[in-house]
Amino acid sequence: MSGIGFSLLATDGAARRGRVATAHGTIETPAFMPVGTAATVKAMTPDAVAGTGAEIVLGNTYHLMQRPGAERIERLGGLHRFMNWPRPILTDSGGYQVMSLIQLRRLDENGVTFRSHIDGRSFALTPESSIAIQRRLGSDIAMAFDECTPYPAEEAEAARSMRLSMRWAERSRAAFEPRPGHGLFGIVQGSIYPDLRAESTQRLLALGFDGYAVGGLAVGEGQALMFATLGPSVQLLPADRPRYLMGVGKPDDIVGAVARGIDMFDCVLPTRSGRTGQAFTRRGPVNIRNARHLDDPRPLDADCACPACRAYSRAYLHHLWRAKEMLGQILLTWHNLHYYQELMAGLRDAIAAGRLATWMSAFAEAQAEGDIEPL
Amino acid sequence: MSGIGFSLLATDGAARRGRVATAHGTIETPAFMPVGTAATVKAMTPDAVAGTGAEIVLGNTYHLMQRPGAERIERLGGLHRFMNWPRPILTDSGGYQVMSLIQLRRLDENGVTFRSHIDGRSFALTPESSIAIQRRLGSDIAMAFDECTPYPAEEAEAARSMRLSMRWAERSRAAFEPRPGHGLFGIVQGSIYPDLRAESTQRLLALGFDGYAVGGLAVGEGQALMFATLGPSVQLLPADRPRYLMGVGKPDDIVGAVARGIDMFDCVLPTRSGRTGQAFTRRGPVNIRNARHLDDPRPLDADCACPACRAYSRAYLHHLWRAKEMLGQILLTWHNLHYYQELMAGLRDAIAAGRLATWMSAFAEAQAEGDIEPL
Repeated sequence: MSGIGFSLLATDGAARRGRVATAHGTIETPAFMPVGTAATVKAMTPDAVAGTGAEIVLGNTYHLMQRPGAERIERLGGLHRFMNWPRPILTDSGGYQVMSLIQLRRLDENGVTFRSHIDGRSFALTPESSIAIQRRLGSDIAMAFDECTPYPAEEAEAARSMRLSMRWAERSRAAFEPRPGHGLFGIVQGSIYPDLRAESTQRLLALGFDGYAVGGLAVGEGQALMFATLGPSVQLLPADRPRYLMGVGKPDDIVGAVARGIDMFDCVLPTRSGRTGQAFTRRGPVNIRNARHLDDPRPLDADCACPACRAYSRAYLHHLWRAKEMLGQILLTWHNLHYYQELMAGLRDAIAAGRLATWMSAFAEAQAEGDIEPL
Repeated sequence: MSGIGFSLLATDGAARRGRVATAHGTIETPAFMPVGTAATVKAMTPDAVAGTGAEIVLGNTYHLMQRPGAERIERLGGLHRFMNWPRPILTDSGGYQVMSLIQLRRLDENGVTFRSHIDGRSFALTPESSIAIQRRLGSDIAMAFDECTPYPAEEAEAARSMRLSMRWAERSRAAFEPRPGHGLFGIVQGSIYPDLRAESTQRLLALGFDGYAVGGLAVGEGQALMFATLGPSVQLLPADRPRYLMGVGKPDDIVGAVARGIDMFDCVLPTRSGRTGQAFTRRGPVNIRNARHLDDPRPLDADCACPACRAYSRAYLHHLWRAKEMLGQILLTWHNLHYYQELMAGLRDAIAAGRLATWMSAFAEAQAEGDIEPL
């Protein structure tokens, strides 16, 4: 099964520089995927998203199946056309959102039934229905349906949960209809337990997937434990398939995970932070709501080529914030997505040049420097 | 005094095709000015605003003097640089907003004192301070400070109010510092009373302004009375200076006013409606919130070349609305501003070709047709 292609172009230690090929184009890796939950990357036009350098976005099955509905999107020509994003799309399976957003749910061997947090309607998700929905959406990369094991979990509970996810992975695999340029990723679970992660990986490899995701991390365990779990787990994955760390993360989370061999990431952080006034910069986070920016004519990040940094002062961005103007959220989201894409481009270049360690030192140093002094 | 240039390129009946020249570029007239109240045209980037064809935007003195403050904007290089709009800017005098937004205000011969509706601070506006603020903002076209007479007003009250505005116009004129490419417009008042409008015009002409605005209309009197008042009033204005009808309006208001000799317009309608789900189209208004659009793959307006109509279905726009996604407001605002600019371009072409009457018939017919049938 090789519905999508993967070329490993270079390595530097465990880190990889690669290229994923899908029906809607290629993705240079390591890659960051902006999250387009409800068929839109919040506050951005698709042209603007592409302009930041993003080559793939993520859509949320949980949200789209409820509103506007997968059948409706299919009738309207699929998700790419619906949201005017002609490039690759990855869809998650819906499992994570059901677990994280819904209090009233019932989970059994077959799948999950739940009431929508949007309108209270009843829905069911099973491996088969999740794959069918993702097929209707037309995503290039679909994800196996799984239970994201909450943290913390006792080892017995983590094992039970992981094994359920593995049985669901087998059913997802069986339900997935192979097509050229479209692929299905399996998801490794097992919480923070190396033996469970290893068992999960073995079972997925036995089934064979187009790519492998690491799930169940960045759920509260902290960066040190995340990296400690991730490192050995990634080494068990085959070199010739892409690896995706789900829901990660902050810039330094991404850098550390790339160094450990991860190729793909998604996270709401750059978009959500953009809407709440936090910008990511080469010198760490900047809170544009802070009054120190009132009269500051300097850009957010002097080394950034994004529209927000090229043409606007901190004083203006701060003003937009105070005035509750939408353009403030637009420009900060734009900057953050641009920053994340430049981060990935920097990582790709460093790996290709075999100088990732040096690059990471410079990155950490700049981040630790903190924001420029107030005027 | 001719701080800004005006060329009359063609006429068709009372309608005029012209060109205004300012320090920041030229404006083809009849022109529509999007409103950028708080140093941003809401939901739009400046590039997007320019992309709709807009050549000038309006800034609100009342809002900007309070937040972020005119002195701050001046220190930051002026309003053009602050908001990244390198093209012409017209600022109003602040008088209208004080009257319409503020309950607690005190008006006397000198000016108005009021408490901010934003933060309760006390402010004063006089002809001199309004002109000084507009100078600090650096607008290309400043407006004389006036009292917008409420509607309805008895003739005696309208006369008192107009004469106060004329004394303020004289003080505004004296306070305005002539600079090449920058101009000051006087504002005709007098409610719906032809004799008062004539007296107001005479007094402004005696002072001499770079352009003349018609104020105190579109304040509740209805279209018929607005046109009845406007027609004779416009004829008293000199042919060699631009004419601006403040705060107007709906598409058919604009068309009728152009036919009566108006050159410039501003209105929050296209932007505000874009944020509340109403689109203006060649076939009249469309409410995107309506469930009839749920499965409609057609664009808002098949004859529109704006980004929202070129790349998105009504179903998608409706979905964005339901999901409360910012992109819905962005795309509808974009469409509306684009529609208004195409309306003005159509009017300009029709006047230049001497076929305005035919164009107006076709416009009215298409508007009356109403939206396309549901599928």
